[in-house]
Amino acid sequence: MDKQKIVAVDAMGGDHAPQEIVLGAVEAVKELDVKVLLVGREEILTSLLEKESYPKEKISIVPASEVIETGEVPTSAIRRKKDSSLVVGLNLLKKGEADAFVSAGSTGALLVGALTIVGRLPGVERPVLGTCLPTLNGFTFLVDSGANVDCKAKYLEQFAKMGSVYVQNLFGIENPKVALVNIGAEKEKGNALTKEAYDLLEASGLHFTGNIEPRNIPYGEADVVVCDGFVGNTVLKLSEGLVMSLMKIIKSEITQGSYKIAAAMLKKPFGNIKKRFDSDEVGGAPFLGLKQLVVKAHGSSKAKAIKNAIRQCCIFIETDVTGQLREKMAEQNEQEEA
Amino acid sequence: MDKQKIVAVDAMGGDHAPQEIVLGAVEAVKELDVKVLLVGREEILTSLLEKESYPKEKISIVPASEVIETGEVPTSAIRRKKDSSLVVGLNLLKKGEADAFVSAGSTGALLVGALTIVGRLPGVERPVLGTCLPTLNGFTFLVDSGANVDCKAKYLEQFAKMGSVYVQNLFGIENPKVALVNIGAEKEKGNALTKEAYDLLEASGLHFTGNIEPRNIPYGEADVVVCDGFVGNTVLKLSEGLVMSLMKIIKSEITQGSYKIAAAMLKKPFGNIKKRFDSDEVGGAPFLGLKQLVVKAHGSSKAKAIKNAIRQCCIFIETDVTGQLREKMAEQNEQEEA
Repeated sequence: MDKQKIVAVDAMGGDHAPQEIVLGAVEAVKELDVKVLLVGREEILTSLLEKESYPKEKISIVPASEVIETGEVPTSAIRRKKDSSLVVGLNLLKKGEADAFVSAGSTGALLVGALTIVGRLPGVERPVLGTCLPTLNGFTFLVDSGANVDCKAKYLEQFAKMGSVYVQNLFGIENPKVALVNIGAEKEKGNALTKEAYDLLEASGLHFTGNIEPRNIPYGEADVVVCDGFVGNTVLKLSEGLVMSLMKIIKSEITQGSYKIAAAMLKKPFGNIKKRFDSDEVGGAPFLGLKQLVVKAHGSSKAKAIKNAIRQCCIFIETDVTGQLREKMAEQNEQEEA
Repeated sequence: MDKQKIVAVDAMGGDHAPQEIVLGAVEAVKELDVKVLLVGREEILTSLLEKESYPKEKISIVPASEVIETGEVPTSAIRRKKDSSLVVGLNLLKKGEADAFVSAGSTGALLVGALTIVGRLPGVERPVLGTCLPTLNGFTFLVDSGANVDCKAKYLEQFAKMGSVYVQNLFGIENPKVALVNIGAEKEKGNALTKEAYDLLEASGLHFTGNIEPRNIPYGEADVVVCDGFVGNTVLKLSEGLVMSLMKIIKSEITQGSYKIAAAMLKKPFGNIKKRFDSDEVGGAPFLGLKQLVVKAHGSSKAKAIKNAIRQCCIFIETDVTGQLREKMAEQNEQEEA
């Protein structure tokens, strides 16, 4: 039998914490072969758990009296709030008491905390958030989807390398196509960052296919699309907002007068489309380049998203994403030094 | 009677030049009270025009033997190709032989050419491209939608000022709401550029409503949304790509089997929605902050888009957008100096 997988969850982070986080953990342990450590205010968590029925041995509470709020400056919050759910959770990971840590709290605080407590893999300058974006023919893996808002070209090259290792290992895509998000297809186009990154990517040994214009991202022309975290988060969040608002526009157009009947007939296919673009179905984005497994769940995560983030952790643990990255990044560093 | 409006059009710029540009000019003079100067290779343009019927006195050809290609470095292209359609067209504007210039060619070359030949309004550091994005409740004006890919915070403040003057004058929106595109709602969020720009916008005297997250842009919470040209172009182009790809997904989902009948009944409302997001309906984006009127048409412009860009020029000429901006930017400079 495999070793029991243990996922620590920040019960206090996110817009719907702690209620929805607790419910997500409950759903997860019912469905999955996993043990969850809920990190947060003991009394609140105890009272929330008391209302639920689930295999009791599969959820434990790890007390943490403080909460890092979304508006706080990450570095000082991590330093001051030693007993926050985020810091306590990351320490569980460090001490080997958990295999993964999930938080729907502040991305900045999670990144700073992870860097400080868990640390980077050798050779990695900046860990990166990677997110699967739905496309016409499947998905594309977006790095950085929001961790590093000010980047050097060198970071983008590393994001591309880590993204490639990730999609190759997790999805079995051989020699994944990597493209640089840019506002023009030609090499000469873009800003100072993309121009420099283009040259590095071209010389990287990756399967670099050149620039991808944002309009083409939804068509799935590349397996990995690379950009800084500001642009990546813009791509991610605008996609969500646009799909949702477009569905609203469609709904308001086709539920008027004589179209109502036709609209009613199409409920099922529209439901399928919505599901395809529902970020809750994925649940979380892994930080690539850390020594251990840290997963960022969407700030607006409800129970389903948390459950799916925990499910993702289980897959990451099984496929040993961190170990694979450690190996590949070390290999590449050796090659560079040679 | 008003003075005859004259619009110079770069007949050689864009993916579908010169054919579609010529057709757009023909449609424009048939519909609008405008004279068009088609700038480009005389023989080709003459032979294309010969096939069309239109009031002959309303289109003239202005010969230009060279073409600036999209991959060329803007500064050297403008310097070298004195007889390019772009340079010749901008010179028509400068000499007062045209009231506006439209090009679907390279944005970079158009910007550099306009700066060199037409020049900036006093007090403006960087002219900016502004584009109307469709939203749930109407539209939002995006500045910069692609002209300045590397920005200082000071530029963003000026983009916001020019954008405000523009929507106030052209659409009569009093005290327009201005928001900064950022990856978090809180003031502390974002990259180095947005953090600095936030402070400037807060102190600007504009109706600044704070950060807007990309997911909320389609909901139309602000009249003007401000960002650098790289992020703005990403927002613009990703929106186009996503809407088109989502419509494709919907089409493939609802034209299967038993849904076909319902789908057929909904052709009209879906047509309306597509039209609402069709950039060809708008046709062009003005450069704000130049001494004269220069309009960038989409690189993929076909005849309809060119016609609509010429239509837009007529509105800009009538409402004297340039004069209004000249006045307001001068006023603001005086206030700053006082």
